[in-house]
Amino acid sequence: MLVRISHNRQISLALVNSVRLASTTSAAAVKTAGSSKPPVSRVNGGGTASFKTTKVIDPNRNDKPTVVILGSGWGAIAFLKHIDTKKYNVSLISPRSHFLFTPLLPSTPVGTVDEKSIIEPVVNFALKKKGNVTYYEAEATSINPDRNTVTVSSVALITDLNQPGLRKSHIGIDPSEPVEIKYDYLISAVGAEPNTFNIPGVNEHGLFLKEIPDSLEIRNKFASNIEKANSLPEGDPERKRLLSIVVVGGGPTGVETAGELQDYVSQDLQKFLPSIAKEVQIHLVEALPTVLNMFEKKLSSYAKKVLEKTTIKLRLSTAVVKVEEKHLVSKTKNPEDGSTTEETIPYGTLIWATGNKVRPLISDLFKKIPEQNSSTRALVTNQFCQVKGSNNIFAIGDNAFMGLPPTAQVANQQAEYLSKLFDKMSQVNGFHDQLSARKEKYDLLFEENKFKPFSYRHLGALAYLGSEKAIANITYGKRSLYTGGGLMTFYIWRIVYLSMLLSARTRFKVCLDWLKLAFFKRDFFKEL
Amino acid sequence: MLVRISHNRQISLALVNSVRLASTTSAAAVKTAGSSKPPVSRVNGGGTASFKTTKVIDPNRNDKPTVVILGSGWGAIAFLKHIDTKKYNVSLISPRSHFLFTPLLPSTPVGTVDEKSIIEPVVNFALKKKGNVTYYEAEATSINPDRNTVTVSSVALITDLNQPGLRKSHIGIDPSEPVEIKYDYLISAVGAEPNTFNIPGVNEHGLFLKEIPDSLEIRNKFASNIEKANSLPEGDPERKRLLSIVVVGGGPTGVETAGELQDYVSQDLQKFLPSIAKEVQIHLVEALPTVLNMFEKKLSSYAKKVLEKTTIKLRLSTAVVKVEEKHLVSKTKNPEDGSTTEETIPYGTLIWATGNKVRPLISDLFKKIPEQNSSTRALVTNQFCQVKGSNNIFAIGDNAFMGLPPTAQVANQQAEYLSKLFDKMSQVNGFHDQLSARKEKYDLLFEENKFKPFSYRHLGALAYLGSEKAIANITYGKRSLYTGGGLMTFYIWRIVYLSMLLSARTRFKVCLDWLKLAFFKRDFFKEL
Repeated sequence: MLVRISHNRQISLALVNSVRLASTTSAAAVKTAGSSKPPVSRVNGGGTASFKTTKVIDPNRNDKPTVVILGSGWGAIAFLKHIDTKKYNVSLISPRSHFLFTPLLPSTPVGTVDEKSIIEPVVNFALKKKGNVTYYEAEATSINPDRNTVTVSSVALITDLNQPGLRKSHIGIDPSEPVEIKYDYLISAVGAEPNTFNIPGVNEHGLFLKEIPDSLEIRNKFASNIEKANSLPEGDPERKRLLSIVVVGGGPTGVETAGELQDYVSQDLQKFLPSIAKEVQIHLVEALPTVLNMFEKKLSSYAKKVLEKTTIKLRLSTAVVKVEEKHLVSKTKNPEDGSTTEETIPYGTLIWATGNKVRPLISDLFKKIPEQNSSTRALVTNQFCQVKGSNNIFAIGDNAFMGLPPTAQVANQQAEYLSKLFDKMSQVNGFHDQLSARKEKYDLLFEENKFKPFSYRHLGALAYLGSEKAIANITYGKRSLYTGGGLMTFYIWRIVYLSMLLSARTRFKVCLDWLKLAFFKRDFFKEL
Repeated sequence: MLVRISHNRQISLALVNSVRLASTTSAAAVKTAGSSKPPVSRVNGGGTASFKTTKVIDPNRNDKPTVVILGSGWGAIAFLKHIDTKKYNVSLISPRSHFLFTPLLPSTPVGTVDEKSIIEPVVNFALKKKGNVTYYEAEATSINPDRNTVTVSSVALITDLNQPGLRKSHIGIDPSEPVEIKYDYLISAVGAEPNTFNIPGVNEHGLFLKEIPDSLEIRNKFASNIEKANSLPEGDPERKRLLSIVVVGGGPTGVETAGELQDYVSQDLQKFLPSIAKEVQIHLVEALPTVLNMFEKKLSSYAKKVLEKTTIKLRLSTAVVKVEEKHLVSKTKNPEDGSTTEETIPYGTLIWATGNKVRPLISDLFKKIPEQNSSTRALVTNQFCQVKGSNNIFAIGDNAFMGLPPTAQVANQQAEYLSKLFDKMSQVNGFHDQLSARKEKYDLLFEENKFKPFSYRHLGALAYLGSEKAIANITYGKRSLYTGGGLMTFYIWRIVYLSMLLSARTRFKVCLDWLKLAFFKRDFFKEL
C-alpha cells in the first residue's frame, strides 16, 4: 500500500508559515488544516524560515507520494525518464524549459550543429510518462527542508501533462509572486554554475559556454569582431586584438570549443574573408601542464601533440591573473626552474571554460542542514544518493558530491539508479512511513532492506580536437579501448554522442547537421 | 571592346561633392582628378545634392563598367547569379546579409520550417561567380543620380569575394560615417516595406512578417501570451484576449500564416496544453469579400470554403479602422444592403500582412528624376527594366512598376532578363558609350539594336491553407493546371517551393525540416 509520508507533519509545517495568509488566499491552494502535532522535521530550518505570506501549492492530493525534481539537465531528465509515475506524483521545476545535450554545445557557436538540434523540451519527456507530471517553468529560489517546500519565483508557465487541464490549485498564481511547492521527496539536480575563481574581470568581460544563449553570444561577439577588424588595415594592432580569441580551460569544453572555432576559421571563413581568416589567432590557456588531464596520459599527450601542430596557440602551466576589457594578464610557470613569466594577451573574444562552482540555491541549503554546514562544492550524499542529514532530499549530478567527477555520465547513471531505488522503496510495505519517522542514520534503513548502493561504471570519455581528430577511451565490460587519432576516432566520437542523445528528435537533427556539413558551410549567422 | 561609360562625367561630378574632402582623405579612395567638362547628367539632382564631406569609393578601376546592385532579395540575388562578371565589375549593397526565401516565411514562426533553412548568405552566391564581386553589408540611404553614386551608412562588413584581401580603397572606412559608392549602372532591387495604410496603431502594436526577426518576434509574442493565459482561469476575458490572434490580410502571406498557426495549435500545442489550445482563436481579416483574390475565382472560392470549415474565423469585407494595445476596431460591410457593422476585436497577437509600400530610398529618388516625380508606389520602368528618365538606373522587383504583380516570380524573371540584356549590351560595340551620351528616349537605343523587351510568363501561383490543404494554379507551356485540394496539391506546393529555392543548402534543409515534421513536433522554442 502506498501512503503519503508524514501528512500531518507537512500540514502543520505549512501552517507555521501560512497562518497569516489564511484569510487572504484560496483554501484550495493553501493548507491551513489544524494539527496539534509538533513539527518532526529532522533538519534545522528555523533560522532561515521565511515569514512572508507565501502561497503554498500542494500539487497532488491523492495516495501517492509527491516527488519534486529540481533541474532540467542530465540528472533531472534521466530521473524523469525512468521514475515510475504510477507509483509517484512527479513535479519538475526548472527555469530552463529544455534539456540541453551539453557534450555538443562546443559545436554550436560556429554552427557545426544547430542550437535547436541539441535541445529537447521538458514537456516532450513528460508527455511520454504514463501518469501525471507537472512542469513548473520557474526559478527555484529556496529549498525549505523545515517545511518540505521549494520556493519558486518568476513562474513563466505551469504545464500539467497527461491530464485535460490545469489543476485548480495552479490557477490564479501570480507569476510575479513567489509560491512554495510541497514535496514528499525532493530530487535536487540543479547542476552548478561557471566558476571564475574570483579572478577580477571575468564576469564582466568573459563569455561562458554553459547554456544556449551563451552560444549565441559567442557567435555574435566573434562575428561583430570580424566586422570591426575588416575595416582596419592589416598590421593594425587593434585588428590583431579583435581577431584574437582566448579560450581559458583545457578540459573537454575548452579544447572542443577551440577546435571548432579553428575548424570554422580554416574551412569556412577562409573562403570569403581569407585575409581575416589568416589573422585569427586562437589561444588555449590551461593552468596545468597538460590539456584534458582527466584522460589517460597517453591520450592527453596525443591531444597535446595534435593541438601543438595546429595554429591554436597552446599556453600550458598558465594561470589568468586578471581580465581587463581588451586584454588579460597571465602568469606562466617555467617547468624547469619554477619561475613565472607575466604576459599581457590582448583579446577580442574571451571564452571562460574552467570549471564549476555551487549554485546559491544549494549553498543556501548547506546552512539549513547541520550535516551539510561544512559542505562547500556540493551536497554530500551517502551511497544511496541521499543528502546526508535529510531523510527526503536526494541529490544527483554536479550539485551532489560522492567523490565522482562532475560529468553527464555520472549524473545519468545516478538518475537511473535513483529511479530504481524509488521503485524498490514503493515495493517495501511501510517504507515511506519508516523513512519519514526515522530521526537519524537514514542509510541504515536502505541497508536493512538490502537496497544496493550506487556504483559508478566508467564507460569512457571522448574529446574532439578539431580538424576531424578526436581522442576516445571506451570501456566495454572489463576491456578498455584507448584511441587517439584521425577520422576513425572522430567517427567513434560522433556515433557515441548520437547514441547518448536523450531523444529521437535531437538524434535525427544532429545526424542531419553532420550530414549537411559534408556538403555545405556552417550556419554561422549573426543574431540568429 | 569594353569601355567605362562617361568616365570624365563621373569624375567631374564626384569633384563637385568631394572637393572639400580632397585634403583630408586618401587620394586612392577619392577621385579628385580635374576635368573641366561640365556635368552631363540627365537627371535633376541639384536640389537634393549633399555637400557634406562624404568619402567616395570607386570600387573598380579597370576597363569594365561597374554594376551596383541594391538589395538582397529575389531580384538582386537572381541578377547576381546571372550577371556575367567577366564583362562587369559587380558590387552589391544590402543591410541584410542573406537572401530570404519569402514564400516559406509563414512556415517559420511556429517552427514548421527553421529560419536558417530559408536564408542563404549573400557571400555564398557571390563566391560562385568567376569574377570579383564586392558585397557591402550596409544600408543605402540615398541614390544620387546627379553624380552616379549611392550613399551608404552603417557599413557592417565589406567583403571582396574571389580575391585575396580587402581592396585598399575599402580599408579605413569608418563604419559610423556614410560613404558614397560610384556606379556606371545601378540595379535597384530593394523591394518594398509593409504598408499600414496609415491606420492608427498598426506600427505600434502590429507585427509584420517580412523578415526573419519578424518571425522570431511573432513566436515570442505568441509563446509569452500562452504563458500569461495559462495562469488565468478558463472563462477569464483576459485569458481569451491573450489567446486571440488576428491576422490582417487575406493574401497568400496572411492565409498561410493563419493556416500554419492553426496547424501548430491543433497538432502540437494541443498535446501539452489542451485547455489552452482549445481556446486559441485565430481571426483572418480581409477587406475584400474574398481571400486570395489573385487566384482564379474557382480556387479562391475553394480556399474560402476550406477556411470556413476550420476553426479560423474568417472575417471578409472587413476593414480595420484603428488598432489599440489590446483590441482593434473593424468595420464589416454587409454585402446585401451595403450597411456597415462596427466591431471591437480583442487580440493578444496582431499580425499585419496587408500589402507593401515604397521604401524611403525610392520615394526620395522620385524627386530627383523629373520623369518619376509623379510616381507613388514604385519606379516606373520601360520594357527594358530601365527606370524612365535615367540612362543608367534599372529597377526590378517590387520597387519597379511595369504593370505586373509584386511577386517573387516577376522579380526573378526580370532579373534573368536584365542579366541577358547586360550581356547583349556588352556585345554591341560602343553601346555603353552611346547609352551614356544619349540625352533622351533611352529605350529607342535598345530598340534600334533589336533588344527584345521583357515579357512576363506566368508560371502559376500556390497557397497553403493549413491542415495539409493547398491551392495551386500551374502553367506549363500553353496549358494550365488548376487544383485545389488535399494531400496531392499540398505535395505539389512543397515540390514547387523546393525547386524554387535558390541554393542547394536551403533545398537540403527545407526538405529535412519537412521530413522531420513527419515524425516530430515543430521546433517552437521561445527566444531561439
